[in-house]
Amino acid sequence: MAPANKKDYDKMALAAHKQMRGKLEVVSKGKLKTKDDWSTMYSPGVAAVSSHVAKNPADARKYTIKGNTVAVVSDGSAVLGLGNIGPLGALPVMEGKCAIFKEMAGVDAFPVVLDTQDTEEIIAVVKAIAPGFGGINLEDISAPRCFEIEERLKEELDIPVFHDDQHGTAIVVLAGLINAAKVVGKKLEKMRVVIVGAGAAGRAVALLLTEAGIQEVIVTDRQGIIFEGRTGLIPYKKALAKVTNRAFLQGEVLDAVDGADVLIGVSGPGTISRHHIEKMAPQAIVFALANPIPEIKPEDAQLAGAAVVATGRSDYPNQVNNSLVFPGLFKGALATGVANITEDMKLAAAKKLASLVSKPTSTEIIPGVMTTDLAKKVASVVKKGK
Amino acid sequence: MAPANKKDYDKMALAAHKQMRGKLEVVSKGKLKTKDDWSTMYSPGVAAVSSHVAKNPADARKYTIKGNTVAVVSDGSAVLGLGNIGPLGALPVMEGKCAIFKEMAGVDAFPVVLDTQDTEEIIAVVKAIAPGFGGINLEDISAPRCFEIEERLKEELDIPVFHDDQHGTAIVVLAGLINAAKVVGKKLEKMRVVIVGAGAAGRAVALLLTEAGIQEVIVTDRQGIIFEGRTGLIPYKKALAKVTNRAFLQGEVLDAVDGADVLIGVSGPGTISRHHIEKMAPQAIVFALANPIPEIKPEDAQLAGAAVVATGRSDYPNQVNNSLVFPGLFKGALATGVANITEDMKLAAAKKLASLVSKPTSTEIIPGVMTTDLAKKVASVVKKGK
Repeated sequence: MAPANKKDYDKMALAAHKQMRGKLEVVSKGKLKTKDDWSTMYSPGVAAVSSHVAKNPADARKYTIKGNTVAVVSDGSAVLGLGNIGPLGALPVMEGKCAIFKEMAGVDAFPVVLDTQDTEEIIAVVKAIAPGFGGINLEDISAPRCFEIEERLKEELDIPVFHDDQHGTAIVVLAGLINAAKVVGKKLEKMRVVIVGAGAAGRAVALLLTEAGIQEVIVTDRQGIIFEGRTGLIPYKKALAKVTNRAFLQGEVLDAVDGADVLIGVSGPGTISRHHIEKMAPQAIVFALANPIPEIKPEDAQLAGAAVVATGRSDYPNQVNNSLVFPGLFKGALATGVANITEDMKLAAAKKLASLVSKPTSTEIIPGVMTTDLAKKVASVVKKGK
Repeated sequence: MAPANKKDYDKMALAAHKQMRGKLEVVSKGKLKTKDDWSTMYSPGVAAVSSHVAKNPADARKYTIKGNTVAVVSDGSAVLGLGNIGPLGALPVMEGKCAIFKEMAGVDAFPVVLDTQDTEEIIAVVKAIAPGFGGINLEDISAPRCFEIEERLKEELDIPVFHDDQHGTAIVVLAGLINAAKVVGKKLEKMRVVIVGAGAAGRAVALLLTEAGIQEVIVTDRQGIIFEGRTGLIPYKKALAKVTNRAFLQGEVLDAVDGADVLIGVSGPGTISRHHIEKMAPQAIVFALANPIPEIKPEDAQLAGAAVVATGRSDYPNQVNNSLVFPGLFKGALATGVANITEDMKLAAAKKLASLVSKPTSTEIIPGVMTTDLAKKVASVVKKGK
């Protein structure tokens, strides 16, 4: 399953980034060659545009970059699987997200990495810079701050705010599960799903799978299974306990996986062992999504009996890749001018993604990022009034 | 002096902006076509870059966009001559600045328009977003807030902070005066200069001309001549009164211009009349810099006896155009990694600009924006340790 000649992507990436000196360029759509160019692109002509937009704020989407531009915002507190490495460490990842926005969806995106990890400050900063953007894509902000930051910004801004680590991941996971269920011949709603990790992604996956009709969703954290009434639960886990694990299962992760159909790791390397997978029901589905190092090596998961394995990596099959989602959803949001990306849109995006794999197999449950018109197809689920 | 067939730049600009839907694009330097592209530009390879930069923050300039990217920040409180039209109104102008950065100097610049005009909030926001940028170009922020905002940010950030409306304008004005003095056969230091307008640009012009050795600089505001001891002066004007007008002249603008060699308008349309110019010394130099509508029509200034006339417009000769300065100064700052753009660099930039006009005439005291390698030449004045 692993590539025969594993390439040294670390070395390749370091060399490529150094050579490029950053992955993004901000270019002018118009040239400044003649006096007329200057007078039209800039003074004196631009004054008429500024006056018009100031008087007709809705027209900012037509006359300025607002109509097609998204801010990719991170405080660097939960970067990939690397943890809290700060804004500069986050920057290469955010640049990558912006490159993906443009290459996949034609959306202009700019990275904003923040020198604060204070919830109120982050909210204030994003609100302050929002006028120039048509959407806010939050990235790699740790739980539980990310929940309040997203909720508050959604309430207070009139443009879509989307925490990709939560909803992007959840949407692709649901898409993958829809197809994985077909591959193993089980009914989606009847599968028992165990989620290892109750952070931003774990919570969002649990909520979206529940919304999609899966009846048994169990979330675990470092203290084991999360159940209603467990002492010491922080508020968001308490809320999560009320809508998941309706069988009130208690115990360790090993207890949770006993007979489970699906195991989803959204935690860190080493939290899932072959022993866990061996206890699962036959035709087990394992998503080991820690990035860049999965919870368990896909090879080991297969040896332990997993029928379908997915990771977050591009160098294995079945990549649970948020890039399948965020470029298209924002493309749709910008095109329609919706103020929110709703739960209905998220479910529709997952179904749309799943439908793009015509014949799901154990190594193809999720469409590739190179799927023709992928972002356009995902964008099509965003409709006004949905 | 006016173009024979005055074009309707307002109409042209509105049409062009609507057609472009914003003047900027954020593009990826690398393609995302193959699996290797993805693994190098993004996960898993990008994790190595993020880790490296987090551990070696100085290398952010080599591996990320920080090394070549400037934020163009405005709160929309003093946009061109249009006044306080807010962040959306400011956006077309800031996009234009960014286009100019790229087209003239190859510097990537991104507009950040703020939904706040509170000094402390602006400082906090700019500090918070600073990590991803190699410089901060403040634009169109009204006085006196702009002074504190710039000063505080200069102190608190380790990247250059430059309020273009102040220093960009001052540098080009000084460059133009150096050459205008030659055209009219006067000695720069001995000319009496009257500045109409004591806002951001007026203060900066007064200070830079004083630093350049001009001994008689008089600033006026709506109450007339600013002199030491005038009652009711706000703090920055009080400070300005201490270093200008050493002859302690009092009275109206008309008193100030009596026998003056240079009249510089940095105010608004209509504040300079033919009557003012008629009172000046022979071979009067008039810079009417309000934008887009100058304090007095260049044609009228000439009829009143001005020997050299400059404006802020691209459709008249002698454009005092900040675009001659900010792209080059930031290009130099980014290339050298200096933490500040110093007074020495500003004086050197003015002299460099003046030197680019080989034979100054009444209609050519300032180089055009199309001067070959202009930004590179201006950038050359930025040196470490200066």
